Amino acid sequence: MSPLTYGLAPLEALREDQVEEIHRASMKLLSENGMLLIDYPPALERLRSHGVKVEGEMAWIDEDTLMHFVNMAPSTFTLLARNRANDLPVGGDRIIFAPVYGPAFAMDLDNGRRPSTLEDFHNFAKLTYMTPELHHAGGVLAEPNDIHVDERHLDMLLGHLTLNDKSHMGSVIHSDFARDTVTMDEIVFGADAIRRDPASLSIVSISSPMRMDERMLSVLEVYAEAKQAMILASFIIVGAMSPTTLAATIAQQNAESLFAIAYAQMVNPGTPCIQGPFLPNVDMKTGAPGFASPESALAMIACAQMARRYGLPFRSGGNYTASRTPDAQAGYESAGNLWATITARTNFVLHAAGWQEGGLSTGYEKFILDVEMLGMMTRFTKGISMTEEDFAWDAYEEVGPGNHFLGSAHTIRHYEDAFFQPRIFHTDSFEKWRDEGSLNAGQIANGVWKKMLADYEPPAIDDAVAAELEAFVTHRREEIRDGRERTEWTVSDRV
Amino acid sequence: MSPLTYGLAPLEALREDQVEEIHRASMKLLSENGMLLIDYPPALERLRSHGVKVEGEMAWIDEDTLMHFVNMAPSTFTLLARNRANDLPVGGDRIIFAPVYGPAFAMDLDNGRRPSTLEDFHNFAKLTYMTPELHHAGGVLAEPNDIHVDERHLDMLLGHLTLNDKSHMGSVIHSDFARDTVTMDEIVFGADAIRRDPASLSIVSISSPMRMDERMLSVLEVYAEAKQAMILASFIIVGAMSPTTLAATIAQQNAESLFAIAYAQMVNPGTPCIQGPFLPNVDMKTGAPGFASPESALAMIACAQMARRYGLPFRSGGNYTASRTPDAQAGYESAGNLWATITARTNFVLHAAGWQEGGLSTGYEKFILDVEMLGMMTRFTKGISMTEEDFAWDAYEEVGPGNHFLGSAHTIRHYEDAFFQPRIFHTDSFEKWRDEGSLNAGQIANGVWKKMLADYEPPAIDDAVAAELEAFVTHRREEIRDGRERTEWTVSDRV
Repeated sequence: MSPLTYGLAPLEALREDQVEEIHRASMKLLSENGMLLIDYPPALERLRSHGVKVEGEMAWIDEDTLMHFVNMAPSTFTLLARNRANDLPVGGDRIIFAPVYGPAFAMDLDNGRRPSTLEDFHNFAKLTYMTPELHHAGGVLAEPNDIHVDERHLDMLLGHLTLNDKSHMGSVIHSDFARDTVTMDEIVFGADAIRRDPASLSIVSISSPMRMDERMLSVLEVYAEAKQAMILASFIIVGAMSPTTLAATIAQQNAESLFAIAYAQMVNPGTPCIQGPFLPNVDMKTGAPGFASPESALAMIACAQMARRYGLPFRSGGNYTASRTPDAQAGYESAGNLWATITARTNFVLHAAGWQEGGLSTGYEKFILDVEMLGMMTRFTKGISMTEEDFAWDAYEEVGPGNHFLGSAHTIRHYEDAFFQPRIFHTDSFEKWRDEGSLNAGQIANGVWKKMLADYEPPAIDDAVAAELEAFVTHRREEIRDGRERTEWTVSDRV
Repeated sequence: MSPLTYGLAPLEALREDQVEEIHRASMKLLSENGMLLIDYPPALERLRSHGVKVEGEMAWIDEDTLMHFVNMAPSTFTLLARNRANDLPVGGDRIIFAPVYGPAFAMDLDNGRRPSTLEDFHNFAKLTYMTPELHHAGGVLAEPNDIHVDERHLDMLLGHLTLNDKSHMGSVIHSDFARDTVTMDEIVFGADAIRRDPASLSIVSISSPMRMDERMLSVLEVYAEAKQAMILASFIIVGAMSPTTLAATIAQQNAESLFAIAYAQMVNPGTPCIQGPFLPNVDMKTGAPGFASPESALAMIACAQMARRYGLPFRSGGNYTASRTPDAQAGYESAGNLWATITARTNFVLHAAGWQEGGLSTGYEKFILDVEMLGMMTRFTKGISMTEEDFAWDAYEEVGPGNHFLGSAHTIRHYEDAFFQPRIFHTDSFEKWRDEGSLNAGQIANGVWKKMLADYEPPAIDDAVAAELEAFVTHRREEIRDGRERTEWTVSDRV
């Protein structure tokens, strides 16, 4: 399943001179204000050894040093998938959709909202596998709250690698869990293969403003050492973790992200990195984060321009909403945000399906509705074809002024794939819709996900690979339950 | 209420050479395929006298003749409003929002869908007056089915001119009704004033493909003679009234619209004209028109580029949906389409609030939800401010790495207008939302429109103007009921 190729000029919120102005502000933040790196002396030592000024836990990096390392990050790379037909080129004019990441709750119209379980995670892994609009398996589709927090990553990785065959994300909770991610991909792909092309993509967030801690840095190092891909970016609630103003926020996220990317290159030159932040803002009335605000959209579009300036792949956006239910708010907010995401030419779109309630819950109906929107944008990204056939000269000869084209030879040649075919967004007459029960879009989506789960059949997997994955998970579960140190797993020499 | 100024570079779906390719295809359609002008010999005579080739009811216009006249249309103009503070500059980088036009039904959550009445029309006129996000009063907000079809235009015009004080649209049902529109604006503004700056904007659709009839042409002539503004554009159901392919559709609407604009200039050079089509497409499964498709969005963006090539103001888009209820479909489709509309840099956005069920009904809740979206896009169009203050250097001095900005002096200076403040799209916690009744966005909107109508107070109006408008409407109603010829009304020499 190849990702989309974006066929239009991207939307831009900054002029070229303004891009440079943001760049200079970012350089000032890094060289004069500095980054705080807490509880992790090895990072300070590594920075010092590469010529970065360090005092206590503060580091100040100058533009030349920073850009020397940033330039080592590749502009494009390929993510491996267990089904190699699903390998994903990242960067350039490609767009990849991945499902929501991180919710602690699940919600559907039958059962309402409740803490999510491993069953929910498995269900969303299955739905993702069955959804061609989603190119990537994602990561924490819904937190498996019924599994001990130190083991969840094993169940989720096993789920991604057996219930699905698309490329997946890795754990960032602890450096040992990152090592488990690498080991499980070594079992599937081979240790050498994943060092040529990364098998996992993990999201290591910077603790804005301008801070990284031991967990972030140690996880980053594990993935960089194995040359696995990372999104190194800020999760900023604008107005709280950055100033309220967009220019400062854009400069700050850019500074933070470039610093982390440069650090990854110091660990292992050529480590594939994606820039691109997540920028909800404080709702000044409720104090809660607002999603899909116009300010977030503007900032995202500008941040994409910054990433292009550095030749870095860009991640942001998705089908965001603060709504707690698959209602009109969910629709307006999600579609608005996805439009900004796509027209910004975002390379990796996390949270493209299922996001609900400000990311606190994964919605079953919302997932299906979001996929409808992804289908529409999939068509949109193709742009306008301009061949001689597209000008339909024979149709104008055949159909005179004032007549209709429905039966023309040209229409018959094209009607099957002429227009996006909706699955949920019906155009039925009012009478037909009323007679069929006056269902709203959420209710229609409810029927779709149930049918999909009933129809699910798992992708093929090599028995030996499946057995070794199971064995590794069992082994690690025992280590974790016994409170033992992590031991290295000797990966079978299969590949 | 000044309209929006669009502060970003517009989104483009065509390269510059592709814009020229569309232009050449349009010229070929007009000079080789030709336009059909039915049942209206005076138009054929007028075209012939301006050097256009005419045979029977067909006309073929060459590029030089066409562009000679198209270039007479102004690139920008001002629409008069009864409250002159609401005058509207049209064209350039301005964006104007107007409510839905044309539905035969009204729908709200309490009463469901029913044929709309004059009371519905009045309600939407009041809501439009009270909504700062809507700059323009619109036209047929909801068809007053309880009034005889030959009198409705009088009641609607009287409603726009007394319940609201924003600029309004005119009737296009019959040339006499167009004359009534002009007379009522002469009563309000004076006969000379509306010939300097137009008071009404009317939408004369071309009957695609490539045809105009007696009604269109005669109405066009009335407005052009009085130098009133017109949207001269195609309402094309793509795949039925144009080929299924976008390149042909864009070329066709461009040809049709340029022809009508040139014709208006032949009637009266300098008549203000707006280009820009309405392009839903056939849903090939149901045969019904689909709204807010990705194909429509692409075509609209390309059509806006064509209008800019000719220096013509552009109209298209809106908050479209095929949904029959204010549900998630309504949200996704409307927001997606409005994003395309705005980023295309559309100058006049009809159907910006209230559109439901493919334009068959005006929704009370949908109107309120759409306005929320307009508020978000209002902020979006302003773009990103890049002053020294926006870089917030003092905040970074005050707030160290890892701390939050909520109490900083910079935040206190900016928090009040930092972010878009939602009215419907809540960010409340799940618990607060649940305890307040788990309302969806449509249900919240239901309370908002009711409160607005309860709070409505009409704008001030000069007593003499109000009396003459009433007298004229009474006079014309009598003429129409008696089946008499329209007589000219002598407008009081007030202005």
